[in-house]
Amino acid sequence: MKLLAIDTSTTASSAAILDDGNLAAEFLVNAANISSSGILRCVDLALECAGLEIGSIDAFGVSLGPGSFTGLRVGLATVKGLVLATGRPVVGFSSLAMLAMNLPHAALPVCPMFDARKNEVYTALYRCGGLPEALVEDCVVAPADFLEHITGPTLFVGSGALRYRGLITGRLGDAALFAPDTCHAPRASSGAVIAADLLSRNRLTPAGEMVPAYIRPSEAELARMKKPTGP
Amino acid sequence: MKLLAIDTSTTASSAAILDDGNLAAEFLVNAANISSSGILRCVDLALECAGLEIGSIDAFGVSLGPGSFTGLRVGLATVKGLVLATGRPVVGFSSLAMLAMNLPHAALPVCPMFDARKNEVYTALYRCGGLPEALVEDCVVAPADFLEHITGPTLFVGSGALRYRGLITGRLGDAALFAPDTCHAPRASSGAVIAADLLSRNRLTPAGEMVPAYIRPSEAELARMKKPTGP
Repeated sequence: MKLLAIDTSTTASSAAILDDGNLAAEFLVNAANISSSGILRCVDLALECAGLEIGSIDAFGVSLGPGSFTGLRVGLATVKGLVLATGRPVVGFSSLAMLAMNLPHAALPVCPMFDARKNEVYTALYRCGGLPEALVEDCVVAPADFLEHITGPTLFVGSGALRYRGLITGRLGDAALFAPDTCHAPRASSGAVIAADLLSRNRLTPAGEMVPAYIRPSEAELARMKKPTGP
Repeated sequence: MKLLAIDTSTTASSAAILDDGNLAAEFLVNAANISSSGILRCVDLALECAGLEIGSIDAFGVSLGPGSFTGLRVGLATVKGLVLATGRPVVGFSSLAMLAMNLPHAALPVCPMFDARKNEVYTALYRCGGLPEALVEDCVVAPADFLEHITGPTLFVGSGALRYRGLITGRLGDAALFAPDTCHAPRASSGAVIAADLLSRNRLTPAGEMVPAYIRPSEAELARMKKPTGP
């Protein structure tokens, strides 16, 4: 079974191919000068290096969010195109669960955090064994408010954790641990672990019904809500 | 500080670029149809996607072994060429410590295992926090002999762990846990964490003195040892 997973939920883009449970290839790019459309290049290169063609992929996985609104739209549009072209099934997974799974079998609860701007973070709390288990569901919140609910030693990971590192350490002291530098970008392979589990349990999502998990309304929606309704 | 780390100690090849502590790019290929020379393609693509040139790299990291003899020679030759061309420093690290660091902050001691053929494995035991700490040093051993020294719950990772999964589970039962599928290939980014620490402590190795950590003699050396010495 060949599974291709992609992620574009942050400034990083990555594609990973799992071939009968083995990681055949993973390409991750996390550079400000690369646009979200770099994901197709990652997919192409990963396929080429693994000696595969897109037609030999049996299933797809994609991160649904939360994260960059534009990034999520690019990721979903890309995977829907691939699904339409190949007729293969697709599963979606939480981008925060994916980030937490950069730390499988972690000794502590894992708190993945993406910077959500507006002084907020997309965050959650997971227990990570071989698969992630949500202790606190994905949400968007001011980091200080979220930290009030954290009572014990916790492992922080992600761009939001780095941005608010001072605040986190100030509140939690030695109870706050941070993942190694190389773990803060989400990786499609960590998402592929979740996707493979969903596939094995036949938890498919019809591609037409797959929508981004923005968690909060977009600027456009907020603007529309603020406008007076017509007569 | 821009650090480029490479690994070719197994059938997987990978290159990772750490830019001021952020993972800028990682390319990993683990396919039987790719020769070890694929590492230069990984390096080229990682640099290109990160918008960097080889001359902008400040330091290099490379896995010294144990692992595939040919793979290690390719990795060292590659990095020595890059060091010679750029005049930048290089640090070497254990390929088993790198594999263990696919599981940073693991709840259990991590036992990385590469299949060493001849019914043996390259293995060790590490406590993995933000950096690996050797509990049992890198060695080559029959897996059954090594398992006799394991007394508590342990997390196994790597091609050797997969090959001898039945034996390991038979001996240790529920005390044997296995890393998720996507963690069994070593990744240059996990090595980059170790390399960055060595660099920060100025633990450089002169490139000319850098040799592979084969751990056991090569076939050629064994053949020579068996030959009667001339008169």
